[in-house]
Amino acid sequence: MTASHRREHDLLGDRDVPVDAYWGIHTLRARENFPITGTAISAYPHLINALAAVKEAAVRANEDLGLLAADKADAIAAACREIRDGKLHEQFVVDVIQGGAGTSTNMNANEVIANRALEILGHAKGDYRHLHPNEDVNLSQSTNDVYPTALKVATVSAVHGLLDAMAVLRDAFGAKAEEFRDVLKMGRTQLQDAVPMTLGQEFSTYAVMLEEDRSRLSEAVLLVHEINLGATAIGTGLNAPAGYAEAARGHLAELTGLPLVTAANLVEATQDCGAFVHLSGVLKRIAVKLSKSCNDLRLLSSGPRAGLAEINLPPVQAGSSIMPGKVNPVIPEVVNQVAFEVIGNDVTITMAAEAGQLQLNAFEPIILHSLSESITHLGAACRTLAERCVSGITANTETLRATVENSIGLVTALNPHIGYTAATGIAKEALATGRGVAELVLEKGLLPADRLAALLLPAQLAGTGTGLAGATT
Amino acid sequence: MTASHRREHDLLGDRDVPVDAYWGIHTLRARENFPITGTAISAYPHLINALAAVKEAAVRANEDLGLLAADKADAIAAACREIRDGKLHEQFVVDVIQGGAGTSTNMNANEVIANRALEILGHAKGDYRHLHPNEDVNLSQSTNDVYPTALKVATVSAVHGLLDAMAVLRDAFGAKAEEFRDVLKMGRTQLQDAVPMTLGQEFSTYAVMLEEDRSRLSEAVLLVHEINLGATAIGTGLNAPAGYAEAARGHLAELTGLPLVTAANLVEATQDCGAFVHLSGVLKRIAVKLSKSCNDLRLLSSGPRAGLAEINLPPVQAGSSIMPGKVNPVIPEVVNQVAFEVIGNDVTITMAAEAGQLQLNAFEPIILHSLSESITHLGAACRTLAERCVSGITANTETLRATVENSIGLVTALNPHIGYTAATGIAKEALATGRGVAELVLEKGLLPADRLAALLLPAQLAGTGTGLAGATT
Amino acid sequence: MTASHRREHDLLGDRDVPVDAYWGIHTLRARENFPITGTAISAYPHLINALAAVKEAAVRANEDLGLLAADKADAIAAACREIRDGKLHEQFVVDVIQGGAGTSTNMNANEVIANRALEILGHAKGDYRHLHPNEDVNLSQSTNDVYPTALKVATVSAVHGLLDAMAVLRDAFGAKAEEFRDVLKMGRTQLQDAVPMTLGQEFSTYAVMLEEDRSRLSEAVLLVHEINLGATAIGTGLNAPAGYAEAARGHLAELTGLPLVTAANLVEATQDCGAFVHLSGVLKRIAVKLSKSCNDLRLLSSGPRAGLAEINLPPVQAGSSIMPGKVNPVIPEVVNQVAFEVIGNDVTITMAAEAGQLQLNAFEPIILHSLSESITHLGAACRTLAERCVSGITANTETLRATVENSIGLVTALNPHIGYTAATGIAKEALATGRGVAELVLEKGLLPADRLAALLLPAQLAGTGTGLAGATT
Amino acid sequence: MTASHRREHDLLGDRDVPVDAYWGIHTLRARENFPITGTAISAYPHLINALAAVKEAAVRANEDLGLLAADKADAIAAACREIRDGKLHEQFVVDVIQGGAGTSTNMNANEVIANRALEILGHAKGDYRHLHPNEDVNLSQSTNDVYPTALKVATVSAVHGLLDAMAVLRDAFGAKAEEFRDVLKMGRTQLQDAVPMTLGQEFSTYAVMLEEDRSRLSEAVLLVHEINLGATAIGTGLNAPAGYAEAARGHLAELTGLPLVTAANLVEATQDCGAFVHLSGVLKRIAVKLSKSCNDLRLLSSGPRAGLAEINLPPVQAGSSIMPGKVNPVIPEVVNQVAFEVIGNDVTITMAAEAGQLQLNAFEPIILHSLSESITHLGAACRTLAERCVSGITANTETLRATVENSIGLVTALNPHIGYTAATGIAKEALATGRGVAELVLEKGLLPADRLAALLLPAQLAGTGTGLAGATT
Repeated sequence: MTASHRREHDLLGDRDVPVDAYWGIHTLRARENFPITGTAISAYPHLINALAAVKEAAVRANEDLGLLAADKADAIAAACREIRDGKLHEQFVVDVIQGGAGTSTNMNANEVIANRALEILGHAKGDYRHLHPNEDVNLSQSTNDVYPTALKVATVSAVHGLLDAMAVLRDAFGAKAEEFRDVLKMGRTQLQDAVPMTLGQEFSTYAVMLEEDRSRLSEAVLLVHEINLGATAIGTGLNAPAGYAEAARGHLAELTGLPLVTAANLVEATQDCGAFVHLSGVLKRIAVKLSKSCNDLRLLSSGPRAGLAEINLPPVQAGSSIMPGKVNPVIPEVVNQVAFEVIGNDVTITMAAEAGQLQLNAFEPIILHSLSESITHLGAACRTLAERCVSGITANTETLRATVENSIGLVTALNPHIGYTAATGIAKEALATGRGVAELVLEKGLLPADRLAALLLPAQLAGTGTGLAGATT
Repeated sequence: MTASHRREHDLLGDRDVPVDAYWGIHTLRARENFPITGTAISAYPHLINALAAVKEAAVRANEDLGLLAADKADAIAAACREIRDGKLHEQFVVDVIQGGAGTSTNMNANEVIANRALEILGHAKGDYRHLHPNEDVNLSQSTNDVYPTALKVATVSAVHGLLDAMAVLRDAFGAKAEEFRDVLKMGRTQLQDAVPMTLGQEFSTYAVMLEEDRSRLSEAVLLVHEINLGATAIGTGLNAPAGYAEAARGHLAELTGLPLVTAANLVEATQDCGAFVHLSGVLKRIAVKLSKSCNDLRLLSSGPRAGLAEINLPPVQAGSSIMPGKVNPVIPEVVNQVAFEVIGNDVTITMAAEAGQLQLNAFEPIILHSLSESITHLGAACRTLAERCVSGITANTETLRATVENSIGLVTALNPHIGYTAATGIAKEALATGRGVAELVLEKGLLPADRLAALLLPAQLAGTGTGLAGATT
Repeated sequence: MTASHRREHDLLGDRDVPVDAYWGIHTLRARENFPITGTAISAYPHLINALAAVKEAAVRANEDLGLLAADKADAIAAACREIRDGKLHEQFVVDVIQGGAGTSTNMNANEVIANRALEILGHAKGDYRHLHPNEDVNLSQSTNDVYPTALKVATVSAVHGLLDAMAVLRDAFGAKAEEFRDVLKMGRTQLQDAVPMTLGQEFSTYAVMLEEDRSRLSEAVLLVHEINLGATAIGTGLNAPAGYAEAARGHLAELTGLPLVTAANLVEATQDCGAFVHLSGVLKRIAVKLSKSCNDLRLLSSGPRAGLAEINLPPVQAGSSIMPGKVNPVIPEVVNQVAFEVIGNDVTITMAAEAGQLQLNAFEPIILHSLSESITHLGAACRTLAERCVSGITANTETLRATVENSIGLVTALNPHIGYTAATGIAKEALATGRGVAELVLEKGLLPADRLAALLLPAQLAGTGTGLAGATT
Repeated sequence: MTASHRREHDLLGDRDVPVDAYWGIHTLRARENFPITGTAISAYPHLINALAAVKEAAVRANEDLGLLAADKADAIAAACREIRDGKLHEQFVVDVIQGGAGTSTNMNANEVIANRALEILGHAKGDYRHLHPNEDVNLSQSTNDVYPTALKVATVSAVHGLLDAMAVLRDAFGAKAEEFRDVLKMGRTQLQDAVPMTLGQEFSTYAVMLEEDRSRLSEAVLLVHEINLGATAIGTGLNAPAGYAEAARGHLAELTGLPLVTAANLVEATQDCGAFVHLSGVLKRIAVKLSKSCNDLRLLSSGPRAGLAEINLPPVQAGSSIMPGKVNPVIPEVVNQVAFEVIGNDVTITMAAEAGQLQLNAFEPIILHSLSESITHLGAACRTLAERCVSGITANTETLRATVENSIGLVTALNPHIGYTAATGIAKEALATGRGVAELVLEKGLLPADRLAALLLPAQLAGTGTGLAGATT
């Protein structure tokens, strides 16, 4: 060993650790064992903060129950608070995809907290006689209750960010629904012209979808508030004293401000990944509808001349070096791609959950990785879509009105007024000659001009007067 | 045309239909257009019954609003009731996977109901002057509100069957949890020996998982009670009179006994498949946990000699023609396969939902197909697992107790009593010599025999005395 | 037992079997054990025929090696041939989704063949003293080599049907590529107008894609020709005599006309589902591109007035009862849905393959089910698309030419001739005023009319003169 | 503008770029537009190097054809070579998930190369009058041929790394197959005891699977050698001069050492992602079998006392802080997780490929991201598994032999020698009494001890003498 390293010891023997490192021998071995992604868990600040909160709650519970002296407890808690303030995150160096059910992440946390606490107490890093990563920081705990609990706290926190981003996007769509409330256009089913509606109604659906999805996400994240802290190794609570689970939960709820509850059956809770699968399923639902909405935006803005050209997305960058003036719908496109990622991640999470065996699911690290990416990328996608695309959308109002006036679908609305037979005749003649329905109706004297104009009022055609359709909720 | 056929007419011209057929020209064309699976929609009785209920509700609403004469309405309603009583299902002949957003299914229903109603009124099948499939049976309706509504009613009905089947399985696991409440065994994490628990705790987790999943499924199916009947083509309600949507909903709720609600925004509701994606996500969650439970059952019953041999599954068929006496875990195996199918179906449903465009999702037929198979196969799997496997499981109690007594993991429980250092010494010696922890503790005089025995009491080891773990909820 | 039944015996005891049934006690138990889908294996004629071929090959190999008397062998072979001629298929009654790695399917085959052979020999069904399902029909075999081998032969046969269907569709697209070779149109990237091309080039891509996919499918199916017949229970060939594997393979190759090979490592081959996963991956690739092609067809035919309206799909059924004259792209839509099903099935097959353990994969029945549906549905979809849609497509040639002439993208082609600066000026003016590029170029005298016309020749614009792009291969 | 920035201009106006940045205004806008993952494309060195190679090949082709002066060409080529030597990678700053079909990545490359070339020529960065990112670096190119070509070159390079890693793992398994060639053990089907085999046979399957997968991967990667360089915007080659495509391909083949070919139909090649879907399907196949192999390793090493305990994985880190001495199979566990990730990525890639429209697939960035992670993580997983797990595996030879001797399955092997009836009697007695088959056979005098011993020779039982099974290929 040189002066640049300190020697640490574990079950497998001795290893030298850089003297400046807050992490220790377990972290060192884990780094060597899992050279998979190159992405350290420090890239997941929600997780690091949640881990520190769990450790702080545990130490306070241990102190409450008389298992840990106040000076040690204070030092550990102080180290945890520093981490929650954003310090020492770079010391969380194990790979995010790791074997061992999160043990390496837990060990990394125990070592960083212990070494920082040792410093606070005036000792050298690595001098574990005074305060030990396992004996003190991990007291009454197991990876198998700490890691899932931290994962849940981190997930709740990340989901709150997503809910906010979705609200921003919902409002952007809602504002456009209001702005376009009187813009008449043709509705389409199966990409074929159907019957008239307003562009406001069309945009209101995107707002409504998002709000519905927010409700479902809010429900799903409630399930993630159920924790198994105090379960220790397999849920029997072995070696955690009576009262510990409740004390730790209480401290954690206070530290995080979250209404956490302890699972009724800790054996079940320790092996179960149902809440993560459920949440991922809801994220997938959000992805599906966001992708559908972006497909629509790209379709409606196709053109400028050989497309539908109903709306214009704000240009945000040049689209081509070959074709002067070309602008592409790059923001919806990036959102589509995030949606595809989320849907793939759901399969990954599903397989990881299914692979759990007996008293534990050893594959929670990949669940963390996939879930975390789904949540944060969806949030970024929603904000980007709102701010760089939806808020700047304009409508080609005259084009839209012309497609309605020119539409054969109009005849459907005139059905009750000129009769089905006459309507069919008009439709056939319009199709064959390329002429307009209104023009033909007037020419044949089937309806007076003022009556026809009244029947073609937007509110009439689009059903916005009925109170049934289209109001943004 | 021969006497064996009648001639019918549509937009594309004339076609001959078998004179006995209740279905007509639209159904004929659809059969020719979609020769995909060979499975007719009659294989989905929940859907046929739901379609008939929707049609009956619609006709009553039309009658209420004075749009349809009482004799026609009565005949149509009578035909619908016959279908709901299980008659005429064989007349629903279009392929379950079909283009057209369900139009062919709706047309098939319109034609069968119209022709049966014509008979009731004393007319010949096909004599549509008296009662018309589109003009009368489909009055105020569009495929785009009828089909999703029927799909939802059918889904609710199927899900109720699944909830019942899950309850049967939950009870079977619960009974075993009770039966095995005192059977001590080693718990395992990552397939490695961990600490003691009871077999009752292990089985209780399966019961708890199922009950949690039932709760989630009950919540998810509530979303499917929101219908868009009255939306007509794109949700604007064009050509459906004021009051129709509410009247039709009311009749449908009464006919089905379901607390159906009309969506607040019908434009959104007509294009949105979110509730189906959501429900499929919950079915996937159920599949994941059911598969995990079956994996466990197969693992715990591995043997008879070179396996874990902790439990015995009841033999239900001979396993091999080569190996005399071999019996395999065929029931859990079939459940695993259903789970894999459900997880694949979820991807299909996800893609179909994502592919919706503008005012409609044209891909609901494949959603119906996949969702229906997931629900009914899961239900069959749960019942089969309960009745042909779980209820007959026995435990190898002595083997299980021996693994605990022989386990090095015992030393963890003795930690607080003999100290960590002594415990580590015992563990190392046990591992090296193959001897038992208890034997070594007694030999070294670390604990008196009676105290040791007390510490090894099942309730003590398994934490069942703590109130935290293992009670079946 | 009544006269209507015969009593049979197995490991678990006695059961009564209907006296007319060719299947026996093992089949009876399997039907009771697996009430999952209601679909019997008889719905998979490729599998039944393949099973009969495997059994016939095995009996001939046993006869060659002197293990079975000629009269028994002849009777068994005769029964197998009857099945391959389409008889007795209704006797294959076990559910397609079953536990037991296909044991029930193999037992069902053994029993049907034995009972038919008994009849041929002049004995009563069930009189197994003369010829036994396991001892004689299953001689030298195990489910674990028979079932995968039959599954592979069935798959090869089904894939040949798909290859033929794909060729039909490829030719339909190819014919249209030729028909539309001079139809100039705007190409699009990211749904935005790009540069000119021909409709023939556009359709040629669908033909090329299909031919590439056929090549990949032809390669993938070669992998499925590797069988493990002779491996018996786990690949060690225990109880199969020397020479049996090669003899059975030779007979099977002759009976099926397929160049089958025996796997080099039978232990590996018995547990490995790699070839099925691989094949499913290729089917998924086909599905992806078929779906993309159908998305394009639906987009290009959108309209009739408020869409792109570039091509017309032949009407095959009325699209709506509300909207007179509406016709929808139902054939591409049904193909999209099959594609989604195939993609979901791929996930199911993946999970089933991953779940194999140690010396066997017990989940091949769901692989059979999913793979078989993917292959046959894709085949039906390809034929339907070719015959009911592609072959009747027409182009709106004038509309297409107008979009080119009206396009700002034209300016890209003039770049080398009028210079980038002038081109940019033209593009900006065109965009601002809505006028055409050619019109502006002529007005400004930048190019003489004849030169401009020459530059706008289809071959020039679409690069079809360069030899690089667009020829149907 | 301050001295710390330079002003650049594009279609949308002016922006200030940090004066030290090699990237320019297009990159700046892209960074602002796509704040999705926080991971820049610089994290994908294979891609950056491939982009530089494509740009160098293009500039040389342009020079060959007289389109670019030698001094400019030399400067551009020199900049490209620097990048390929690992320099300037940190300048590739756009987010890996981006809208625009890779335009931002291409623009980022054009700008970095142009600015470095400007420096080489003695000009200031941003002084594009002398050398322009679009006019010069991107000459004769479009994102739509450059990006897919670079993606393919990068993928080929990454796959070669994976093939090497798989070979390392194959050899590790092969060495163990040889080491354990005489270690007799019980084979298992459906987790139930079957018939004897050797541990060498068991390990040989893992080696054979990997070698088969390597063959499939080698075939699949060949498809990725087909490029569309010269296709420009949509495959028509507009604005790329005659001879350019072939010249550029030739230079790129020389620079990369890869046998690249130009696609026969460039319109098809420009929109087609089939080769990526195909490759991902093969990666999924690899993942499936790798996961299955790791499941087996974890199962076979379960214990130490309450598991199968057939093999021992080398301990690489402490498994638990609660349970002294616990060691977990963390290396196989991390490999399982990578497999789940790869399988999920395949769904993402599938959806992205399916979403392509008309002449382009705009979603290749997510394909790059997912494919790249699948390839590199699989490679890391294979190496880790080989080096940190497989190479250190030991067998519990005595335990394994005892399970064979104690097995009822032995009776199957004695079948031909003592007769089926006697064998059945032995099997039943063994099951009921717990005694051994051999012991009972000797006690009953059914076979002399020496004959029995001969029948139980490993080669005899495991079929390794037959030449059929188990040789490592």
